[in-house]
Amino acid sequence: MTTKRGTVDAEKLTNFTVRALQKVGVPDEDAQITAGMLVTTDLRGVDSHGVARLASYYIKSLKEGRINPKPRPEISSQALATAVMDGDRGLGFVVGHQAMIEAMCRAETAGAGFVSVRNSTHFGAAASYAMMAPERDMIGISMTNSIMDVVPPGSSKPGIGTNPIAIAAPAGKKPPFILDMATSVVATGKVQIAQREGTSMPEGWVIDKDENALTDPVKWVRGEGGLLPLGGTPILRSWKGFGLATVVEILSGLLSGSSAIIIKQTSPEMRASSDHFFGAFNIASFLPLENFKKSMDEMIEAFKALPTLPGVKKIYVAGDYEAEFEEYRRVNGIPLHPTVLSSLKELAEELDIEYDL
Amino acid sequence: MTTKRGTVDAEKLTNFTVRALQKVGVPDEDAQITAGMLVTTDLRGVDSHGVARLASYYIKSLKEGRINPKPRPEISSQALATAVMDGDRGLGFVVGHQAMIEAMCRAETAGAGFVSVRNSTHFGAAASYAMMAPERDMIGISMTNSIMDVVPPGSSKPGIGTNPIAIAAPAGKKPPFILDMATSVVATGKVQIAQREGTSMPEGWVIDKDENALTDPVKWVRGEGGLLPLGGTPILRSWKGFGLATVVEILSGLLSGSSAIIIKQTSPEMRASSDHFFGAFNIASFLPLENFKKSMDEMIEAFKALPTLPGVKKIYVAGDYEAEFEEYRRVNGIPLHPTVLSSLKELAEELDIEYDL
Repeated sequence: MTTKRGTVDAEKLTNFTVRALQKVGVPDEDAQITAGMLVTTDLRGVDSHGVARLASYYIKSLKEGRINPKPRPEISSQALATAVMDGDRGLGFVVGHQAMIEAMCRAETAGAGFVSVRNSTHFGAAASYAMMAPERDMIGISMTNSIMDVVPPGSSKPGIGTNPIAIAAPAGKKPPFILDMATSVVATGKVQIAQREGTSMPEGWVIDKDENALTDPVKWVRGEGGLLPLGGTPILRSWKGFGLATVVEILSGLLSGSSAIIIKQTSPEMRASSDHFFGAFNIASFLPLENFKKSMDEMIEAFKALPTLPGVKKIYVAGDYEAEFEEYRRVNGIPLHPTVLSSLKELAEELDIEYDL
Repeated sequence: MTTKRGTVDAEKLTNFTVRALQKVGVPDEDAQITAGMLVTTDLRGVDSHGVARLASYYIKSLKEGRINPKPRPEISSQALATAVMDGDRGLGFVVGHQAMIEAMCRAETAGAGFVSVRNSTHFGAAASYAMMAPERDMIGISMTNSIMDVVPPGSSKPGIGTNPIAIAAPAGKKPPFILDMATSVVATGKVQIAQREGTSMPEGWVIDKDENALTDPVKWVRGEGGLLPLGGTPILRSWKGFGLATVVEILSGLLSGSSAIIIKQTSPEMRASSDHFFGAFNIASFLPLENFKKSMDEMIEAFKALPTLPGVKKIYVAGDYEAEFEEYRRVNGIPLHPTVLSSLKELAEELDIEYDL
């Protein structure tokens, strides 16, 4: 049901996404997992990482053979708490979902479980996987390497990805803590949104090759400049963002037996692959679960009780902002940008599937 | 041997530190561990976290009973890969060293090992513990909560600590990757250095209660203003620094059965305690060690081969900067600020121990 112009019902959008994925050869269960994650991401207000990329990236890559619609991921393990997975170039959502479950199963037994994944593809929002853990009373971690968009401090050229990290922990009465952050100042999707909206970017997001601020997102899409690591400038400690991005590269790209993006890019067949890292801590292996949840509630309440600056209504803890979006959008629908909506309509025609958004 | 004015030999400084710690009741082995970590931190150029705090903080706290010189840490474990430790209010160095070894022993068996520690005290530089892992062909993680110096985005008052995170991984021919970062723009020690040096701070480190930049470190030491989370401003994503600080609080404060600093501060007896979190991944549980080390070297070399901005001599990977300092200072001695040197001289008189720096 279109509740207002450009606003789409979550269930209809999920079903549409499933139909599109099935049509390009993705099995039903995998299509459901992928659609669920994409639409949940849109529901949570993360418009950069949801169905905006369905037609232009996921379906296109599936059709053109860069993503394997029917992967057979292989897991190997040398120790109780760890495993390595080869994703068989499957949809990152499908591979990541399976790897996160593997990590949680190992955490159930060993207290902690970690799976490093090679040879996967773009897995959407990192939070989708970390968020699976609080449902099982665990703390979840997920991260991925990504294409070279970020300029290391001191360089004039990108050398690492936006390499996001997500960490989620359950609370008691409060919604779970869910941090999902690119290790660059902003994710590439935020620049793509600025391009769609026709707005300029704030200084501090992107620099050109001479280190000047680049504020026109169109120039960035054309290949000029690069994203800055979290911190932004050396004086504000951009080596920290670069360092965190390198950690993601080590745990995802290197520990899985793949390699860093800056090495992979020299090989056309490996360039489009993604590597991930998933982890889970079983809270009950550390302390009684109820004690932990009570402490989470107390901490969150104390943060929210801090005095606010003039004009600030409340203190947000990671995940709050997205939870507010989800509450509103579940009822009122997901407002999709006209270019996203028309990309879905064109997709329906191209794949010859029903369009009812 | 004093190689030049204010410059002290690392071995002499270590022995002096051991003498001082022994004199206030710290057993020999524990004094050696603590002195080794403090002086290595100074050797690595991290002047904020070394012997600058020996007299004013560690010895003072030991003398006044806030730190227990002869702790008996207790470890309990419910699962192969995880444990919880009560630090018995011991020196953070001693407690942290033992907990990191525990995490690595568990990683030896389970592939990964994690220890959450409550009831410890200030442990110096987070890198000291993570760095122990590469020596054993592991990836190491260490973090700690700390006193409330950082202002969450939207608030006018500190509500969380600078909560540093360190992660270290071995390379092959290259020095190990060692990231050690406060989750605030800068650590409190950097502000203390600015105060010692009589310099002003750059905008973006500290704000006053009205969100204006505070650049006078003396005002901060007097209790005005608060440090900004990594990212600095909301538009440059300071919620990420606050989110990372909260993760440290969850893994250290909450998972250990202690609580968040914002809760602990209401209890005078708990206020001065620190909680830590240590972890290790056994690389050989994921892939052959030599493959990993080769990939590390390749990645580091590729970063260093990136084109540099005008005026930039080379690209630094986390740990490089400190390794350069260490190489120089091991030969040429550690240059200590006159106020630090005189604090050590006064300490020698106060404790009636030999002063030979």
